[in-house]
Amino acid sequence: MPQPAAAPSSGRLHFPHRHLTGIEGLQPHEITFLLDEAEGWIELNRRRAEPDKRLAGLTQINAFFENSTRTLLSFEIAGKRLGADVVNMHVGQSSVKKGETLIDTAITLNAMRADVIVIRHQSSGAVRLIADKVDCPVLNAGDGSHEHPTQALLDALTIRRRKGSVAGQRVVICGDILHSRVARSNILALTALAADVRVCAPSTLMPAAIERMFVTPFTDFDAALEGADVVMMLRVQNERMSGGFLPSNREFAARYGLTEERLKRAAPDALVMHPGPMNRGVEITSAVADDKTRSAITEQVETGVAVRMACLDVLTRSARGVEGWA
Amino acid sequence: MPQPAAAPSSGRLHFPHRHLTGIEGLQPHEITFLLDEAEGWIELNRRRAEPDKRLAGLTQINAFFENSTRTLLSFEIAGKRLGADVVNMHVGQSSVKKGETLIDTAITLNAMRADVIVIRHQSSGAVRLIADKVDCPVLNAGDGSHEHPTQALLDALTIRRRKGSVAGQRVVICGDILHSRVARSNILALTALAADVRVCAPSTLMPAAIERMFVTPFTDFDAALEGADVVMMLRVQNERMSGGFLPSNREFAARYGLTEERLKRAAPDALVMHPGPMNRGVEITSAVADDKTRSAITEQVETGVAVRMACLDVLTRSARGVEGWA
Amino acid sequence: MPQPAAAPSSGRLHFPHRHLTGIEGLQPHEITFLLDEAEGWIELNRRRAEPDKRLAGLTQINAFFENSTRTLLSFEIAGKRLGADVVNMHVGQSSVKKGETLIDTAITLNAMRADVIVIRHQSSGAVRLIADKVDCPVLNAGDGSHEHPTQALLDALTIRRRKGSVAGQRVVICGDILHSRVARSNILALTALAADVRVCAPSTLMPAAIERMFVTPFTDFDAALEGADVVMMLRVQNERMSGGFLPSNREFAARYGLTEERLKRAAPDALVMHPGPMNRGVEITSAVADDKTRSAITEQVETGVAVRMACLDVLTRSARGVEGWA
Repeated sequence: MPQPAAAPSSGRLHFPHRHLTGIEGLQPHEITFLLDEAEGWIELNRRRAEPDKRLAGLTQINAFFENSTRTLLSFEIAGKRLGADVVNMHVGQSSVKKGETLIDTAITLNAMRADVIVIRHQSSGAVRLIADKVDCPVLNAGDGSHEHPTQALLDALTIRRRKGSVAGQRVVICGDILHSRVARSNILALTALAADVRVCAPSTLMPAAIERMFVTPFTDFDAALEGADVVMMLRVQNERMSGGFLPSNREFAARYGLTEERLKRAAPDALVMHPGPMNRGVEITSAVADDKTRSAITEQVETGVAVRMACLDVLTRSARGVEGWA
Repeated sequence: MPQPAAAPSSGRLHFPHRHLTGIEGLQPHEITFLLDEAEGWIELNRRRAEPDKRLAGLTQINAFFENSTRTLLSFEIAGKRLGADVVNMHVGQSSVKKGETLIDTAITLNAMRADVIVIRHQSSGAVRLIADKVDCPVLNAGDGSHEHPTQALLDALTIRRRKGSVAGQRVVICGDILHSRVARSNILALTALAADVRVCAPSTLMPAAIERMFVTPFTDFDAALEGADVVMMLRVQNERMSGGFLPSNREFAARYGLTEERLKRAAPDALVMHPGPMNRGVEITSAVADDKTRSAITEQVETGVAVRMACLDVLTRSARGVEGWA
Repeated sequence: MPQPAAAPSSGRLHFPHRHLTGIEGLQPHEITFLLDEAEGWIELNRRRAEPDKRLAGLTQINAFFENSTRTLLSFEIAGKRLGADVVNMHVGQSSVKKGETLIDTAITLNAMRADVIVIRHQSSGAVRLIADKVDCPVLNAGDGSHEHPTQALLDALTIRRRKGSVAGQRVVICGDILHSRVARSNILALTALAADVRVCAPSTLMPAAIERMFVTPFTDFDAALEGADVVMMLRVQNERMSGGFLPSNREFAARYGLTEERLKRAAPDALVMHPGPMNRGVEITSAVADDKTRSAITEQVETGVAVRMACLDVLTRSARGVEGWA
């Protein structure tokens, strides 16, 4: 079990990136470093000891151009626990509706002297576009079908905590692989950490040439599940699917829903994961979701707050003048 | 006049409940204890002395599944004044819209390590359902037509401050008794504190067998007002009334609206109360609402913040390790 | 260049107003005093030194009855940087929708013991109405087509910082002068500080007898620009224009849009300003807006946070018992 490491380590620059726009481009030891940092926050959040307000005086802007509850709550709680002045910008009340360009919004947030900006946006690449225009660290909270890096980090950490290590685990990711930023970031993180990753989707929801991402594709869920150590179900997101030939929820559940019966093909101690919110009875049955020993779904939520605390802390170290982070 | 008591009393466990889901089940001395605690906060809020941030480091989630301004503002101000990290979850931006079950939302908030959850929900009993699933105290900010306990506490405290005591006061509650959680919680609190409670409504808006709640029902408002010490008007809430045979606003005003003329039947120093927001000219005329000596409507708002501070403080004492609250 | 002055000056009462409902009624030295105070906050915001939480323990309510992003964000960041407990009340979730009167809302916010209230409202004069009903300072964040005083202050400060002084500068304000609270507050502030102000609009969007405000009206933008030191463009706000004979966006851009070609008529070092959010290609071209040396649009945003911090600080000094501010 890795050691808690909430305090920055001695003088060495572990994380040389200014932003966290995706898992792509991160070295395995950099991912591991973020997971180690997050471990410490899980313990602190449970102990409810003296609050550690190391971000006191810093301004964190959560700019959510796409609706979200969990991820926004998680980032807001993470920032407030660290003492940051957290400000939410919702799309519903935003200038974007008045026709302002994304770049102008970015420049505006920057001019207000934000110290860290967390962004969710419906367009792939929007976060990178904003990151290029601002002076402070930018954290991607999900952009289109591109990346959702903190989700991948929290998933990797959950696996590591439950299984001891990510390396060598046979992980099956099942659902709409084509449109899912959760799948994409997880594939990048888990393969970087040497997991054996299988992806499973109907052929219409499978990206072309997915093998180049070092994963094994399946269209048959039963075959994919064979001997799996971890089963990661994706949320069915009708809102992100565009256009015809898609399975109905009932057809999808029949072929790709995770049931107790199907789960028997996986390893006896297989871990079940879901990023939430769940469509019970569609991609996962309640019996599986609520299985106390195998389901890690609730633990994922807890790990998420800790991962976000770690990212907010690490990315602002340089600006806070933490030793070794110039 | 009761003594301010913002600091917890010496070692005795006054409030043995983990949650505040309703007034039902509270002993009279427990209600009195909460009122005593709230007294102290009223004084502190007025004096604007050194802030008392006793909830520093704790996470308060306000999960409002039903729109609200006053109650949300009141709980948000209460929590922030006590130093809590306060996070609001509005239904408009919530996963509930994505089809998540209430239980899953509760489990998620709990996994984020909330220290206290404040809930408003359109369904009676929803708050109890959530309370059963989480490890932290839950405060009911109004659930369907069931209960709204902090409203009843602030009303009782307002009466006690203005009349010296609740016991023996002749209180008339007038309006839609059938659907009103404010009425229900007030009936429970005021009868527990030995007030003489009369309820007044058209027969279609009067619960069956209401006498079992130790109140006297009236359909004639003039008769109910005879000799009243306190007149508590309910808000006409068209949104909560379902189906036919209901009076129009004009008919309602004529029969059940509180006018200066009508108020003459009450005691000369009768107190006028309303939970707000008021429909001026419907359930209450402006002349009565704005009567400086008899209307306590503004004072109710002030008392509300203090009552919520007291509840947030008391319910988190055990988790904060306050002596005598293990 | 004026001296930073974040700390209150020795014993003298510089700002004898309880509220900031408009620029109207302010003496030139009072405007200058607010600008001097804001200077200090700009430097502090850039240096990210020890946070100065002088509003700790105070409750700031942002009551926004009209949608806004920038102004709300700016006031929220300003208040949180100063340590206030900041609470937002959005109209979308407000009792106003339930038919409550504006006065009742004001009385409610006051009864919650707000220490400062920031208000945006779609009706001219609404802010003054509220200010008359509450015990704490009220800051106008824009009311109808009446005033938007912090915008005028931030514009004046931006000019002063870039030009050394406001006095004597030839400032052109171009756009919908008739409906613009930004124009109105700027005219009042800039003429008070002895600028030479020209206003330019199609005759249908020019107030009658505007000369009485000590400005020179133009309908020909080219003529107005001749020799200008500052060009302040207003946002085209279709939502605030009522009824016929208005130019289309294309016609407006052709006659009143600020282009590089047109800007040549102004002084070679003319400053370009816009309150944002911009309609690029309508009232201003991207080439002009993004001109690094002449555009001060981004600086306006930064100055805005500082001006709001200054106003929040100054208006609460009396209540905080700051020496000389009884």
